[in-house]
Amino acid sequence: MTTNKQIVLASRPAGEPSVDNFRLVQTPVPALNDGQVLVRHHFLSLDPYMRGRMNEGKSYAQPQPLDAVMIGGTVGEVVESKSPQFAAGDKVVGMGGWQQYSVVDAGPAGMLRKVDTTHVPLSAYLGAVGMPGVTAWVGLTHIIAPKAGETVVVSAASGAVGGAVGQLAKTRGCRAVGIAGGPDKCAQVVDELGFDACIDYKVHNDVKAMSKALKEACPNGIDGYFENVGGMILDAIMLRMNAFGRIAFCGMISGYNGQPIPMANPSLILVSRLKLQGFIVSEHMELWPAALKELGTMVATGKLKYRESIAQGIEAAPEAFLGLLKGRNFGKQLVKLI
Amino acid sequence: MTTNKQIVLASRPAGEPSVDNFRLVQTPVPALNDGQVLVRHHFLSLDPYMRGRMNEGKSYAQPQPLDAVMIGGTVGEVVESKSPQFAAGDKVVGMGGWQQYSVVDAGPAGMLRKVDTTHVPLSAYLGAVGMPGVTAWVGLTHIIAPKAGETVVVSAASGAVGGAVGQLAKTRGCRAVGIAGGPDKCAQVVDELGFDACIDYKVHNDVKAMSKALKEACPNGIDGYFENVGGMILDAIMLRMNAFGRIAFCGMISGYNGQPIPMANPSLILVSRLKLQGFIVSEHMELWPAALKELGTMVATGKLKYRESIAQGIEAAPEAFLGLLKGRNFGKQLVKLI
Repeated sequence: MTTNKQIVLASRPAGEPSVDNFRLVQTPVPALNDGQVLVRHHFLSLDPYMRGRMNEGKSYAQPQPLDAVMIGGTVGEVVESKSPQFAAGDKVVGMGGWQQYSVVDAGPAGMLRKVDTTHVPLSAYLGAVGMPGVTAWVGLTHIIAPKAGETVVVSAASGAVGGAVGQLAKTRGCRAVGIAGGPDKCAQVVDELGFDACIDYKVHNDVKAMSKALKEACPNGIDGYFENVGGMILDAIMLRMNAFGRIAFCGMISGYNGQPIPMANPSLILVSRLKLQGFIVSEHMELWPAALKELGTMVATGKLKYRESIAQGIEAAPEAFLGLLKGRNFGKQLVKLI
Repeated sequence: MTTNKQIVLASRPAGEPSVDNFRLVQTPVPALNDGQVLVRHHFLSLDPYMRGRMNEGKSYAQPQPLDAVMIGGTVGEVVESKSPQFAAGDKVVGMGGWQQYSVVDAGPAGMLRKVDTTHVPLSAYLGAVGMPGVTAWVGLTHIIAPKAGETVVVSAASGAVGGAVGQLAKTRGCRAVGIAGGPDKCAQVVDELGFDACIDYKVHNDVKAMSKALKEACPNGIDGYFENVGGMILDAIMLRMNAFGRIAFCGMISGYNGQPIPMANPSLILVSRLKLQGFIVSEHMELWPAALKELGTMVATGKLKYRESIAQGIEAAPEAFLGLLKGRNFGKQLVKLI
């Protein structure tokens, strides 16, 4: 009988999470019922949204239950199938969680989707051609909706979402400016991903310095901002937004661990006639096909660049996740499970 | 020769404005050139936006110049015309400023518009069928865009804008909840204007108390909020917004006199997938005809109720304006000039 290593949520963090909030368990892989599929995971995706799920209380999603396998996106291979929809050997993407195997009901409402790895690497379906890429696409094209010639800024620009935002903005004729932490990430954002500029928030580390750096990097002001972090950077951005600017709220990683971080000057929403809108990509399923088509084509043709940080083995997932929250990853954070 | 009494801005306020910031001057009414019209003002409109114009520095509008006549909407009667477009006796609405008379260029780009007082009183063109009414209409129908059955909250609910927001929301099948200061205003909002409920912010005077009062007044949560004040009330509202709620930023009177007032928890924009949007009614001129048609019909048929606070004489304008900023008015604040 095959053993399945899993990571469960052992306790909820009080403030900053630690490895003690997680626990490794081993369970036997159960026999399949009719209509079920056994997937062996090749890669697990680690994403900032998981931090929110670790907390109790009202959010847009149910909290991650204690002692249950941590939620997470996975890609892998069907190793056994009792469903006519899947065959052993099929490459699939799904929400398999922090574990080596998952048993999935392959019904029409199932979360499992076959993918083609001829031109797109399997792992990319967790990044540029997966949830992070679609998140970038939806926020950019449906909330920011930039016109050619406008300036779009994105924070966490070297991350899986941020990197795609800037590259998609470039294809639409925009000036793309990133914000990232450290000279290596900033260099990659400009040199590899093709952004026009990137600001190091570790150097420009207060509102005044960031605002000044934004003025230099965005000589025509800011028309669209893709928000991944919150806090000081948002305050600095708002000071530089042009009239009728749009801000897509995708993540606010700086507020995950405790007290909410206030917005310094909300009256700028009125003064600059801004639109601020929060969104969650899973609530826009109708947009996924168009997004995946553009993103898949761009990756297959080498026009959408991305990096991956890969941790090895399910045991490494908690440490890699904590590193992601501290910005230690470089590009999409994955855990390789085979 | 006719003498024109005018109020000019004598100095910019440091913090809270006072009567010393204004000065009364008297000048002769000049002779008309070809294409010009002399209007005798019957009413001057006092509005919160004027406070913003008194400050120096970046805002959406040019600051009011020192020693120039204060900007302001007026209704009146043409007393002399050298333009074929207007005749003596015409009732007109325009931006005549804080003075008894104005000389207006009646060209196609002119701000002067003839109005029909058969079914709508002249003063209403400064309120329910004027800029405040259109402001309510644009924010409600184009930003909040409520569906029947939804709950819409508006602050400064007994004011010219707020009162129209709630009544327009009712015609669209919504639950309308106001926020106002004091039992008299709250009673008027419910009993005269027909709101479903009104919360007294002087009783519920912190975020916790206001949030609790909102929970009782809005048992199904809040879908749309029309923001006229900012500060504590906005924070309390955000805690009660339903997923996909919309907030129209029309004014933030609480921040006019000094330091910006922060928004306590902007991460709720993401958590509740809110849309926050600032707007200025003068930038949506394409919407005015439809707005004025609905508002004019509602006033003429008694379906849109409003109150007026009327100060007498141009000399009374500064004191009445300061009272408006402190919420001492009841409904639309006007100055009667004849």
